[in-house]
Amino acid sequence: MQQLTILKIGGKLLDDDTRLNEALADFTKIEGTKILVHGGGKKSSELSRQLGIEPKMAEGRRITDAATLEVVTMVYAGLLNKTLVSRLQALGCNAIGLSGADGNAILAKKRPVKTIDYGFVGDVEMVNKRLVINFLEKNLTPVFCAVTHDGQGQLLNTNADTIATSLAVALAQDYQVTLKFCFEKNGVLLDPADENSVIPNLDAATFARYQTAGIISEGMIPKLDNAFAAVQAGVAAIIICGRDGIAPGSFQIGTTICR
Amino acid sequence: MQQLTILKIGGKLLDDDTRLNEALADFTKIEGTKILVHGGGKKSSELSRQLGIEPKMAEGRRITDAATLEVVTMVYAGLLNKTLVSRLQALGCNAIGLSGADGNAILAKKRPVKTIDYGFVGDVEMVNKRLVINFLEKNLTPVFCAVTHDGQGQLLNTNADTIATSLAVALAQDYQVTLKFCFEKNGVLLDPADENSVIPNLDAATFARYQTAGIISEGMIPKLDNAFAAVQAGVAAIIICGRDGIAPGSFQIGTTICR
Repeated sequence: MQQLTILKIGGKLLDDDTRLNEALADFTKIEGTKILVHGGGKKSSELSRQLGIEPKMAEGRRITDAATLEVVTMVYAGLLNKTLVSRLQALGCNAIGLSGADGNAILAKKRPVKTIDYGFVGDVEMVNKRLVINFLEKNLTPVFCAVTHDGQGQLLNTNADTIATSLAVALAQDYQVTLKFCFEKNGVLLDPADENSVIPNLDAATFARYQTAGIISEGMIPKLDNAFAAVQAGVAAIIICGRDGIAPGSFQIGTTICR
Repeated sequence: MQQLTILKIGGKLLDDDTRLNEALADFTKIEGTKILVHGGGKKSSELSRQLGIEPKMAEGRRITDAATLEVVTMVYAGLLNKTLVSRLQALGCNAIGLSGADGNAILAKKRPVKTIDYGFVGDVEMVNKRLVINFLEKNLTPVFCAVTHDGQGQLLNTNADTIATSLAVALAQDYQVTLKFCFEKNGVLLDPADENSVIPNLDAATFARYQTAGIISEGMIPKLDNAFAAVQAGVAAIIICGRDGIAPGSFQIGTTICR
């Protein structure tokens, strides 16, 4: 099977132009078919504040009201997505920016209201695999932002980690997928205070043990739950790494998720 | 040759949700391959004002400094483009939103500084016809915003009429292209004060005569220059019309540009 690398970048990397450009150059060097998925960064919070939209949080997650959805659509699908695409084009990578609405690439469902109404937040229902494969076969490199739609005309804010995982799972039957989550740490840390305590390999049993022992930091748990779900669904390799883990041949850097 | 309709919408239509939805429904009804090109609307000026960015004009045209380019990219490529795409998807039209950077669809060159520095404004240099044809053959409907790139990592604000014309000219060898410019009047008016004075057909000689006589309003001249250039370059039909001219079978509405 052909190789496919799906790289998710987010947060601080998007806010640091020099490091971002290095990351994009490294991404371009990855041979074969690849997909980039990007999250937000501080720009959307900045714009919200400038527009007087007060961020509303619930259990550490952002509530997306109509005004916030406008900001998210402007920043994620507009400014960030097109900036990344134009820079990748300059590097010789034939990037194409996509939201989930474009070509009905990713269909989501507005999260049902239980105790909390998250507003215009979507959970992924379907990846349009045929569309994505058509792009990959034309040597296009999809660049996905964290905006999807519900097929009824409603755009939805959707977690970028989830988008990357959904793409990886959907394409696992057609490609040998490597899914890389790039974030501000060098991998999953045994001791959050020690940057050098990266766990090289993590399997589900060890993860469960670490969770019980309170070793894995709270914020890592949704990311790792996502990662273990993907490995169960047939994604060949999942790596959680820092900026240095993007370059091809840097498999030794970061935490590899194993069954 | 296969039919291709390229519809350009802009200005006031984008600001009126009810009329916009009707226009999108009519656009969806157009049979066969089609492309939508959209301009701005008042949202980008509104956002600029909210962010304290003073609009700078020169000879009636907007100067695009770095801050204005950010706004344009957020509003045109983000909010407007994805809103149009998601609504078209809901209507059963398989829309895909594109800036010129996406798949290197439209390459432009920053306008050289002569007496006026327009800033980050681009003049179209090349349409990636192969990419657009590939989308059309996959039954995708491209939705272009008025943002292009220079291939060196710089996004550029580009006139939407010019984008529509460039697409029409580039595809005229492969399709029988109908190019429709939809704007707030019902067509080119013989008397700007009389909405019912639409000129049904306009050829280059008559246009020149009307121009000399001062009959055609100042604001129409760039649009008409564009239109006559396209007709010379082999575009099969060019119609300047109002909202009512979008529906299929409404060829009698508006002004048809003839050689």
